[in-house]
Amino acid sequence: MSTPPVLPDTLTPAAIRAAQVRIAPHIRRTPVLTSGALDTEAGAPLFFKCENLQAVGAFKARGAANAVFSLTAAAAARGVATHSSGNHAAALARAARLRGIPAYIVMPSNSPRSKVRNVERHGGLITFCEPTPEARTETCERIVEETGAAFIHPYENFDVMAGQGTAVLELLEDEPDLDVVLCPVGGGGLLAGTAVAAKSLRPAISVIAVEPEQADDAAQSFRAGRLVRRPVDTIADGLRTVVGGPNLRIMRECVDDVVTVSEAGIVTAMRRIWEELKVVIEPSAAVPYAAILEGRVPLARRRTGIILSGGNVDLEHLPWQKK
Amino acid sequence: MSTPPVLPDTLTPAAIRAAQVRIAPHIRRTPVLTSGALDTEAGAPLFFKCENLQAVGAFKARGAANAVFSLTAAAAARGVATHSSGNHAAALARAARLRGIPAYIVMPSNSPRSKVRNVERHGGLITFCEPTPEARTETCERIVEETGAAFIHPYENFDVMAGQGTAVLELLEDEPDLDVVLCPVGGGGLLAGTAVAAKSLRPAISVIAVEPEQADDAAQSFRAGRLVRRPVDTIADGLRTVVGGPNLRIMRECVDDVVTVSEAGIVTAMRRIWEELKVVIEPSAAVPYAAILEGRVPLARRRTGIILSGGNVDLEHLPWQKK
Repeated sequence: MSTPPVLPDTLTPAAIRAAQVRIAPHIRRTPVLTSGALDTEAGAPLFFKCENLQAVGAFKARGAANAVFSLTAAAAARGVATHSSGNHAAALARAARLRGIPAYIVMPSNSPRSKVRNVERHGGLITFCEPTPEARTETCERIVEETGAAFIHPYENFDVMAGQGTAVLELLEDEPDLDVVLCPVGGGGLLAGTAVAAKSLRPAISVIAVEPEQADDAAQSFRAGRLVRRPVDTIADGLRTVVGGPNLRIMRECVDDVVTVSEAGIVTAMRRIWEELKVVIEPSAAVPYAAILEGRVPLARRRTGIILSGGNVDLEHLPWQKK
Repeated sequence: MSTPPVLPDTLTPAAIRAAQVRIAPHIRRTPVLTSGALDTEAGAPLFFKCENLQAVGAFKARGAANAVFSLTAAAAARGVATHSSGNHAAALARAARLRGIPAYIVMPSNSPRSKVRNVERHGGLITFCEPTPEARTETCERIVEETGAAFIHPYENFDVMAGQGTAVLELLEDEPDLDVVLCPVGGGGLLAGTAVAAKSLRPAISVIAVEPEQADDAAQSFRAGRLVRRPVDTIADGLRTVVGGPNLRIMRECVDDVVTVSEAGIVTAMRRIWEELKVVIEPSAAVPYAAILEGRVPLARRRTGIILSGGNVDLEHLPWQKK
């Protein structure tokens, strides 16, 4: 078997700037939306970076594109692999197809049909496994061994983090005078990229991570200074992951605070954004605005950027509708 | 009573260009979105101009702003008036507040609460009347007589049409090489502005109007060369109006064709746009894409602009959901 590709072992502002150039041909420059009604409700000017309008409907397109296009030609030829049932899998399949290489995606056998279809439409080569974390890891390791594919972790990979950080670079190009950035945290890939990029351009900016109360491992880990495992059960399906080790280290260096929000707050925030911004966002993307609605972040008229992380929802059943 | 203000009696490209400058401080420059999946489905590259992301959630903000800011100071001081239960009323109230003048809005007593709230939040002065066309007109005429306010018709007013035409000017600035523009038609204000603006910049462009089969008075009138009244009963609530006389005259000069779509096609198109573009659009805005899905417009890979006219929907009940 050939040598696995060498991956970077840290996240630097330079890597994020390089990612921006590298992925520009492969991702969308997403718009920044504003709403007078939401500004009034928040008591501060808000700038929503619409990664729900990104390719594959989520910021994940950025990190996946950066990871795939950072590989050497020799490494890339062997393909990429991941285990994920969410947006990262579709994003990695899409990026691999753009580079003309195979993407091996391991998915639990009970994955929702819509998630499977999202990977299939981008040409991902799916292997189903038993729906346990161990089976996912083992199946993926076996595929990596057999194919020599590069394993691209959804958030602990530094190329992935660098790609995710390009969203806030664009936001700060459009709105250079932000005082605060609010970012959801699940595994911590978007958060790590956002924090390093934002602080490098604007050291005085506050970077606040927001997490569901019912999945508060990042908040607990942030305070404890070590990985604290907690039960994870939230409507925000994109945040049903636990924060990664490298991600926590970067959080401790660059993130100012981690606050939590209620499930009801997430649903209210999601609905308010649909109503006022007229965009489809998934529950995870509503988490930062929920922190404002629930008074968890004192904004005091500070100019605030919010990353709307994704828009992949089941349009048959919206969480504010009676069953 | 003082002399009513003199209003223009035709629509020129110069008036639309002037409107663009006049209203720029008061409206949003809306993004143009694309989707690989929708392009594949259509067999042509599509460019969606997102007027659902406009202030008040609809292109109506443009025409209202142009009408209000075109008034002389003396005329403006007496305020503006209209009868409407839809987006035009909210847009006129908003524009009047921006200019610091009163907006008198006549609404049927059975208007949905959400529409009333939309007018109230922008400071409109509402007079309720019996829910008949005659009562609306009479009540509005009485208010105009009493106050000297300028009556701003939702689509037969040429300043309103000029304002609506600025959306396609922006679209053609962003995507100069369009071959076709698809535009919904109800009263014909957006269509008149779009057709005159598009043809002036790009004489070879095809401007195709799209209308629900169940509200096909514009299509019938276009073919007959005179106003044909037809029953109007469609899910596309923004198109439940009949085409105006001046609007039909402009259509006959500048519009290449008027095609119609089914109710089921509108619902399917609306859902596809929510799924793929991740934006909230109202049924009226889905009508042009429905024409593509139903094969009513042979695109043959031509670059096609589509005006997504608005995003004001009831989020409790989506038309594709079972009751």
